[in-house]
Amino acid sequence: MSQPISRFDIPKLADLPDDIRQLIETVQEKSGFIPNVFLALSRRPAEFRAFMAYHDALMDKEGNLSKAEREMIVVATSAANQCQYCVIAHGAILRIRAKDPLIADQIAANYRKADITPRQRVMLDFAMKVSQQAYQVSEADFAELGAVGLSEDDAWDIAAIASFFGMSNRMANVMSLRANDEFYSLGRG
Amino acid sequence: MSQPISRFDIPKLADLPDDIRQLIETVQEKSGFIPNVFLALSRRPAEFRAFMAYHDALMDKEGNLSKAEREMIVVATSAANQCQYCVIAHGAILRIRAKDPLIADQIAANYRKADITPRQRVMLDFAMKVSQQAYQVSEADFAELGAVGLSEDDAWDIAAIASFFGMSNRMANVMSLRANDEFYSLGRG
Amino acid sequence: MSQPISRFDIPKLADLPDDIRQLIETVQEKSGFIPNVFLALSRRPAEFRAFMAYHDALMDKEGNLSKAEREMIVVATSAANQCQYCVIAHGAILRIRAKDPLIADQIAANYRKADITPRQRVMLDFAMKVSQQAYQVSEADFAELGAVGLSEDDAWDIAAIASFFGMSNRMANVMSLRANDEFYSLGRG
Amino acid sequence: MSQPISRFDIPKLADLPDDIRQLIETVQEKSGFIPNVFLALSRRPAEFRAFMAYHDALMDKEGNLSKAEREMIVVATSAANQCQYCVIAHGAILRIRAKDPLIADQIAANYRKADITPRQRVMLDFAMKVSQQAYQVSEADFAELGAVGLSEDDAWDIAAIASFFGMSNRMANVMSLRANDEFYSLGRG
Amino acid sequence: MSQPISRFDIPKLADLPDDIRQLIETVQEKSGFIPNVFLALSRRPAEFRAFMAYHDALMDKEGNLSKAEREMIVVATSAANQCQYCVIAHGAILRIRAKDPLIADQIAANYRKADITPRQRVMLDFAMKVSQQAYQVSEADFAELGAVGLSEDDAWDIAAIASFFGMSNRMANVMSLRANDEFYSLGRG
Amino acid sequence: MSQPISRFDIPKLADLPDDIRQLIETVQEKSGFIPNVFLALSRRPAEFRAFMAYHDALMDKEGNLSKAEREMIVVATSAANQCQYCVIAHGAILRIRAKDPLIADQIAANYRKADITPRQRVMLDFAMKVSQQAYQVSEADFAELGAVGLSEDDAWDIAAIASFFGMSNRMANVMSLRANDEFYSLGRG
Repeated sequence: MSQPISRFDIPKLADLPDDIRQLIETVQEKSGFIPNVFLALSRRPAEFRAFMAYHDALMDKEGNLSKAEREMIVVATSAANQCQYCVIAHGAILRIRAKDPLIADQIAANYRKADITPRQRVMLDFAMKVSQQAYQVSEADFAELGAVGLSEDDAWDIAAIASFFGMSNRMANVMSLRANDEFYSLGRG
Repeated sequence: MSQPISRFDIPKLADLPDDIRQLIETVQEKSGFIPNVFLALSRRPAEFRAFMAYHDALMDKEGNLSKAEREMIVVATSAANQCQYCVIAHGAILRIRAKDPLIADQIAANYRKADITPRQRVMLDFAMKVSQQAYQVSEADFAELGAVGLSEDDAWDIAAIASFFGMSNRMANVMSLRANDEFYSLGRG
Repeated sequence: MSQPISRFDIPKLADLPDDIRQLIETVQEKSGFIPNVFLALSRRPAEFRAFMAYHDALMDKEGNLSKAEREMIVVATSAANQCQYCVIAHGAILRIRAKDPLIADQIAANYRKADITPRQRVMLDFAMKVSQQAYQVSEADFAELGAVGLSEDDAWDIAAIASFFGMSNRMANVMSLRANDEFYSLGRG
Repeated sequence: MSQPISRFDIPKLADLPDDIRQLIETVQEKSGFIPNVFLALSRRPAEFRAFMAYHDALMDKEGNLSKAEREMIVVATSAANQCQYCVIAHGAILRIRAKDPLIADQIAANYRKADITPRQRVMLDFAMKVSQQAYQVSEADFAELGAVGLSEDDAWDIAAIASFFGMSNRMANVMSLRANDEFYSLGRG
Repeated sequence: MSQPISRFDIPKLADLPDDIRQLIETVQEKSGFIPNVFLALSRRPAEFRAFMAYHDALMDKEGNLSKAEREMIVVATSAANQCQYCVIAHGAILRIRAKDPLIADQIAANYRKADITPRQRVMLDFAMKVSQQAYQVSEADFAELGAVGLSEDDAWDIAAIASFFGMSNRMANVMSLRANDEFYSLGRG
Repeated sequence: MSQPISRFDIPKLADLPDDIRQLIETVQEKSGFIPNVFLALSRRPAEFRAFMAYHDALMDKEGNLSKAEREMIVVATSAANQCQYCVIAHGAILRIRAKDPLIADQIAANYRKADITPRQRVMLDFAMKVSQQAYQVSEADFAELGAVGLSEDDAWDIAAIASFFGMSNRMANVMSLRANDEFYSLGRG
């Protein structure tokens, strides 16, 4: 009953533009496998490049949010959007970044009951509001962030990560993007 | 930041009625640990006994639904109800029952994209309707079940499992019931 | 156009296990009629026994909540779940327990406008949150209960009643359980 | 704990414009009591007159829908809007019009499980769609009405009744309009 | 692809009762065109008269709310109800009343981000609560209105406008009422 | 009461990286003004570049969807997300692309009642499903698209536009991004 990687066709690596093929090969060397999102998006080279540039601008930059915290945002909002690929793949990355085998499953199920700090709770409350009711975001939300030491720029980062993965969640659901088997056990110690 | 087992007090094993203490000790011998739900409910002996009797009547009985399928119902509806304990504990049981390390995480994130059979898809669609909009269940739903070979008695079983764990999900969220660390890695192969 | 008691078959009383038949006969003697829920559940003896034990553990025990208050919880949450049997049958019981012919219809329509005390309003707000968004229950809710003199154990009772009848509401809707004609006029004075 | 008729002030009958006072006195003679909606709206004479004219245009006119059927629409949509006054007052009128002591409570709790004809079921499904998601009404809905013999003009009537009482439900909730005690027992046989 | 004025038939002006024909002719002289709502409702003379009387009682009366503010309420709630006719026609009236070519489009898209005063923000928050969750309106809402100088009678006016146009929105969606082309550009300066 | 462009600071053009400043100057020459989204995003150069690259990959590419149709998707989904900037700015672009002064306001209010083709209706239904319930997208949706001649690649385009602007809508709401005054009247003929 195993499903395909995507309901859309996947190009052969050899047919991809050089920059995309090389990026995929680099990821494969580093991770030991090619995360399916790379394969699934590669049929649209311009979108692929913009997606990866956006992703890296949000997830790899310096800032007050730790890399584990950024992944918490991805997992919490992707669970609300019921995105199987994102919950499973970024759950794995969160376990690794946080060096915590439990945190991803906790946040995916109900972040309000997870082993997180009060600052992280406020961070995730804001991420979820951006994800689910952005039209109601108001100055009161920024004040709550400020009260736990999260700056205007942190607010932007949280919102941008929640928004970018909201896009990603929708596309993954439309393409029925399948998470690689490797992700399920990564970081479980 | 690790949270307690429950926000309510947990009696000492020695203070429990004999039948409950013995049941807990039996579970501990069999599983190697005491699932927290037993400890958390033990402060209310009459409710504990009824809960366990109900659980066993639904989950251990004979019937057309396999034990793995029953756990699929638990995981899918508990994810919709955002019950951390039930998703994580029954996710583990589902992995073991189905002998499949991937299925629980798939169903928890979005059962519509999981590696399940068409019959299981109809089963979970019905379970989710009972869980979320039972007031709209109609003969058309029974007809869809029948079309994949699920009988009137199977419909009852599916509905009863979704309903019973809907109760369990609510209580677990009210008590902030914590899943035992052991569950996270069980059945991952 | 009168509907049957349940869309599932109803066993003959003579075919039921002795304990269940006797319990039903006792209820009939006391009430003058057999509430349909007893007949509808009797086809599943193990579930019947667990259901009744659970019900009695929650509704007949001692505690700070009066029996009328417990029935208020049933009526308010059953109305939200659109359970015809529970609203009508427990509406009757509420009228009798509260010695008030108006209260059940008021609570069923909109408990926020009913003739209840501030303590009962907080009790019902909490019951409704457990019923509809249990995943968001937090310490702030317990504080609101405490402010009107409702203890931790009262909180458990409210939550357990809302959760148990949430299960019951779902099953009643799945079986299209019909309320006995007797219930409609009981307790109307 | 009994609440006032309305949270807004109620003029004295003697201070009302003649036409409104006379209309109220006529209702009182006919019914034996003054339904609170007349008192509560009388503080705004122009709105009072328009409201009553609209009400009578929809509820007293000739047409294919029986008067009982029109009251079914009121009760079903008012229950969805959680309007205590409308559910209780029009529940009484429905019992009288339908000469059926059970129908109002059934429809208020879950009209899908009520003792109604297939034509009435389609009528109420349409009324509920107009009440809750009018922006999605489409030609398919008119086709469903036509299939049970409900005409274009019947569709207008159903929609207008659901819409008018949607207005009434909102105002009654804003003013916390209390149903007269008399309504609860009327028509219960 | 241009749609008709209404999915229901439109009587000829000559066939209308005198008072309705004259009212329509007066509007036409004043506005330069006949807003389609007059034509669409004219097939039901009694409803037409009650509708117009209600409309004028709410929109043309004296009071603390300016005529522009009343139109803000119409536009905000009609947008939430996805009523094309009301958003476009009353958007035009709002631009004219407020002498502001931007305000209607802002409020239709998201009134929380519009160029309005704090008092108008509270007014629209209350109007939206009446429109969407009137059953939860409570004294706290009246206190918020009072804090920005909006009286009990203003509260009634806001609620009545939101409720009346909620009725109008539903009927306009059921009849697929088309906004006159003239409205789109009116008041854009 | 006019609001600022964004609640976040806006860099001076002179302080921006050369490529971003030049892109903005080019847009200004072409449009006669600088759409505020360029200014608001410029404080994050890497995100700015990825956003614009993604936008152009979706909106400027060849394909079966006309440029007007792509803007219809933006307007319909942005209205559902209550994004003032996107509804107003892309409403203007839609009017220009479609050479139709009415279409944008119609789609923003309720696309189901707009002057669009059956193919465009299916396109917008799919876009809205991706925007609001992507987790439920299934093969049945692709079949509906196919039935009006929309290919797999068109489905991807629709989904990607709805998803990308879902991200954009969220960020615009978080930053309270103000639409330039020029947009309101553009393309109204």
